[in-house]
Amino acid sequence: MPSYTAPTKDTQFVLHDVLNIKESGIPGYDELERDFTGAVLEEAGKIARDVLHPLNVVGDTEGCRLENGVVYTPTGFKAAFEQVKEGGWPGLDMPEQYGGQNMPYVMGTAVGEFFSAANQAFTMYQGLTHGAASAILVHGTDEQKDKYLPKMVSCEWTGTMNLTEPHCGTDLGLMRTKAEPQDDGSYAISGQKIFISAGDHDMSDNVIHLVLAKIPGGPEGIKGVSLFIVPKFLVKEDGSVGERNGVSVGNIEEKMGIHGNSTCVMNYDGAKGWLLGDMHKGMRAMFTMMNEARLGVGMQGVAQAEAAYQNAVDYAKDRLQGRDVTGAKNPDGPADPLIVHPDIRRSLMDQKSFAEGARAFLLWGATLIDKAHRGEDKDADGLISLMTPVIKGFLTDQGYDMTVKAQQVYGGHGYIEEWGMSQYTRDARIAMIYEGANGVQALDLVGRKLAQDGGKHVMAFFDLVKGFCKENAELSEDYAKDFIEPLKAASKDLQAAGMYFMQNGMKNPNHALAGSNDFMHMFGHVCLGLMWAMMGKAAKSALDAGASDAAFYETKLATGRYYMARQLPATKLHLARIETGADTVMALDAAQF
Amino acid sequence: MPSYTAPTKDTQFVLHDVLNIKESGIPGYDELERDFTGAVLEEAGKIARDVLHPLNVVGDTEGCRLENGVVYTPTGFKAAFEQVKEGGWPGLDMPEQYGGQNMPYVMGTAVGEFFSAANQAFTMYQGLTHGAASAILVHGTDEQKDKYLPKMVSCEWTGTMNLTEPHCGTDLGLMRTKAEPQDDGSYAISGQKIFISAGDHDMSDNVIHLVLAKIPGGPEGIKGVSLFIVPKFLVKEDGSVGERNGVSVGNIEEKMGIHGNSTCVMNYDGAKGWLLGDMHKGMRAMFTMMNEARLGVGMQGVAQAEAAYQNAVDYAKDRLQGRDVTGAKNPDGPADPLIVHPDIRRSLMDQKSFAEGARAFLLWGATLIDKAHRGEDKDADGLISLMTPVIKGFLTDQGYDMTVKAQQVYGGHGYIEEWGMSQYTRDARIAMIYEGANGVQALDLVGRKLAQDGGKHVMAFFDLVKGFCKENAELSEDYAKDFIEPLKAASKDLQAAGMYFMQNGMKNPNHALAGSNDFMHMFGHVCLGLMWAMMGKAAKSALDAGASDAAFYETKLATGRYYMARQLPATKLHLARIETGADTVMALDAAQF
Repeated sequence: MPSYTAPTKDTQFVLHDVLNIKESGIPGYDELERDFTGAVLEEAGKIARDVLHPLNVVGDTEGCRLENGVVYTPTGFKAAFEQVKEGGWPGLDMPEQYGGQNMPYVMGTAVGEFFSAANQAFTMYQGLTHGAASAILVHGTDEQKDKYLPKMVSCEWTGTMNLTEPHCGTDLGLMRTKAEPQDDGSYAISGQKIFISAGDHDMSDNVIHLVLAKIPGGPEGIKGVSLFIVPKFLVKEDGSVGERNGVSVGNIEEKMGIHGNSTCVMNYDGAKGWLLGDMHKGMRAMFTMMNEARLGVGMQGVAQAEAAYQNAVDYAKDRLQGRDVTGAKNPDGPADPLIVHPDIRRSLMDQKSFAEGARAFLLWGATLIDKAHRGEDKDADGLISLMTPVIKGFLTDQGYDMTVKAQQVYGGHGYIEEWGMSQYTRDARIAMIYEGANGVQALDLVGRKLAQDGGKHVMAFFDLVKGFCKENAELSEDYAKDFIEPLKAASKDLQAAGMYFMQNGMKNPNHALAGSNDFMHMFGHVCLGLMWAMMGKAAKSALDAGASDAAFYETKLATGRYYMARQLPATKLHLARIETGADTVMALDAAQF
Repeated sequence: MPSYTAPTKDTQFVLHDVLNIKESGIPGYDELERDFTGAVLEEAGKIARDVLHPLNVVGDTEGCRLENGVVYTPTGFKAAFEQVKEGGWPGLDMPEQYGGQNMPYVMGTAVGEFFSAANQAFTMYQGLTHGAASAILVHGTDEQKDKYLPKMVSCEWTGTMNLTEPHCGTDLGLMRTKAEPQDDGSYAISGQKIFISAGDHDMSDNVIHLVLAKIPGGPEGIKGVSLFIVPKFLVKEDGSVGERNGVSVGNIEEKMGIHGNSTCVMNYDGAKGWLLGDMHKGMRAMFTMMNEARLGVGMQGVAQAEAAYQNAVDYAKDRLQGRDVTGAKNPDGPADPLIVHPDIRRSLMDQKSFAEGARAFLLWGATLIDKAHRGEDKDADGLISLMTPVIKGFLTDQGYDMTVKAQQVYGGHGYIEEWGMSQYTRDARIAMIYEGANGVQALDLVGRKLAQDGGKHVMAFFDLVKGFCKENAELSEDYAKDFIEPLKAASKDLQAAGMYFMQNGMKNPNHALAGSNDFMHMFGHVCLGLMWAMMGKAAKSALDAGASDAAFYETKLATGRYYMARQLPATKLHLARIETGADTVMALDAAQF
């Protein structure tokens, strides 16, 4: 059985030593004292370790089941959900007005990583509810907010997002689900939605579905899509649960992983729904939530990588196999532990330097969302919009790869289900797909975000990196060599790639799109390089100031040096690929495949 | 449900147009006329498509079960196994003396790829038997050969390899299984072996286990290990099956994939066994089989990539989603097929250029094995020994990545089990682990094979690449630019990496070992680069000669150009990593993880 311990110290380091959240001036951040965030994270870590993690394997093994139209979650899920609700965790970063604790989004993200690492399938019930509640919060009428939010903020009722249909996922303009206007101002929703996470289950009294559908006679394609609130049970005047609505579960999907989450086929058969936001502006309403939702999926990539890594380290320290070629490290034992072997080290350092760098990137992104929303800062909004596809695409691609590396450390024991390492890869795999497959993220980045507002945000990103490098170039000779120089080189590669797109994408957009995946990955590396440069600086400062826990900061510096030396140079390969353009990529006719 | 069609035309192209097997002078190859191999491959392709492939999902879904000590394979496996036996496929490349067809190993490999692609879990029963029979063929006494081989060559009896124990896999010196000498010349084998593929099942009358064990009083560690033949049922004088031996199945493992193959815990409780080969030379006997066995696993990487790719192509052509940004390709339909999108193309080209390049590499490797064994060619033996860890490690790492890419093309449909794409990744995953985890392959390559016979074989490899480049540099300006120049550059990177190891590995072997995984991958890329240069040349020759099927050869050239432009430059990144040495890799104490 795998184990999991929330990396609270690491999160605290990022929040306070690297991002200096308390002094950031973001509204609400002045309350985020080190002791306060520490207490919240410790408590969340206990829930993650003691309540959620023990159910991770249970959820994978049992899965959900559909019996006579009722979905049952795995043994123990319901009781654990009660505990999470009682602790007020679902409403951590929701407004007090609706029963939340009004903490900034960055705290929700920090806690969310722990919960997802401990049990991704379980945490999705809460995560989907958060997303649906956020949509109602932004786009709902006061009446809708009062009706749904208090129950959703507490997770007494959970929420879902219904986008995909059997014939369309990415291209929602093809949608067929219909919403017929009724005399009472409601709509009759009919159609089939698939891949609906947390679509139905036995842990809440009601499920509030947000459903995209087309009102007949509206504009063609994506411009005619509206968003509707469709509760499983209609809500009575007094706020209590009333009669069953015309929505039912057609099936539960058999999936590669996240078995503990009920992925449902939802059938809407004239179900009563109410318009959320403006008519025909359903996609816009969805997109408001997109940055948060995609950052939340990027978080899952980090979380699974961290959880898998922790177990790989334990195994590499315990398992005795072979001898250190430079001399026995466990001479009295029959063999040395795996961790002495350089190739095992390489794998563990890949994982460690990713997980820590990615966590910093994620939390930095969350502060930008807070700055954009709480501080109404348009620049922060532009920057996080630019980086959202990178956070989602890069962190989940890499996060998945890291779980595969962690599994590999176990050899054959990683392949059998008994040790739990297979589950990390199977669960992590979904994050590359849902909330916009990573190819769509790359397309969003290169096809939309780069040029948004005249390229202002990508210029701001480069200025930020340049500014950091300039400001810290003289910190010390070693720091400059180990951190600043590699970051500068990688950032230069990224700029060269952007330049290639500008010069060639105009005559043929495929020259840009053929390099979109490489660009997303090189962008991600530069972001993690920046994070490691920032963390290296913070660690150095702490050491220079004579911090008591020197080993922690030394480890940070060494891990950062590894990332800069071994991972960041990937930008060169990505650039080389990008600069070959679309010619070899698009050379074949479809029939030649 | 996925589909599979054996790429017979592609295999024929490699065998005849690229490797010119008939004129190679390898004993037995003069019989390999184009029509003859074509007929064999066509027939094998039919078995793969019609008999094995339909059972692939069945095997995954049902798995094997252990009931009252008896292992049952999934529905249909037994009947299919009979069909494969009737066709004589298991003995394709085994000696006529024992009922085989005496074809070269390259034919067994070509057919093996089709069978593995159609159903890896099923084909392993036959593959393990082939491995065990080969060991008896080389190391057995005449009596042993006569007793076991006729039944094993026909797969009337199947075979297994028993190496791993709960506490040791890579480091077999730690082995505890004992072999006590008996008065009748046999040994009493006691101990537990785990992860025994095809360990027991209901498809054959007997299972012949090859078991590594220690004879008490022998040398310590790996030097005291001997190999034994331990049949499930003792064999009577007349060759018929007699009483049950003291070996039983303790459990069947629950695994991530290859559910159709019974991975058993085998308990030996004073089982009767007979020494195979010399006392205390069990590892050497095992190693004789290693090149073949590892090439067979590398084959699985190619096979799963090919099978997954074929389905990804079908889906990309069928699924309508979004529009080609350069103009609609399906203007009358609601959307264009996925295959118009550059990022989908990139993924498909990655897969296609890998599968075809890898197939050529594999078949080339198989011809070297034939040359070494049938032609008793020491140089060929040295070269294939050098490349074996590359074939095993690189082709399975990359093969797995390709199945993940194929799955990604399906979006959410790739994650649910209904479409079968998850199985390709789950099945492909094991090949990175068994028959020596890929980290062990990299260690074998850098720690042993590079320096073997004074570095003679790696020099021969570089001479071969250099010779090819020189010989074909003037073929045409385009060919030189597209194929020769990139191959030369990549080969130069590989040589630089070898040079780095030589210069730095002496003072600290970790400087070499820290780069072993990167070296294995860059070596693999150079090999595939060489294969594509050879295939490009063959395609060009055919086109210059006015071949009727021009589209086939044009496609080959275009696919090769893609590989050279987009994949081969990976050597630069690997070299950059290698040249950072062990410092950042080994910087942390174990406690700092």
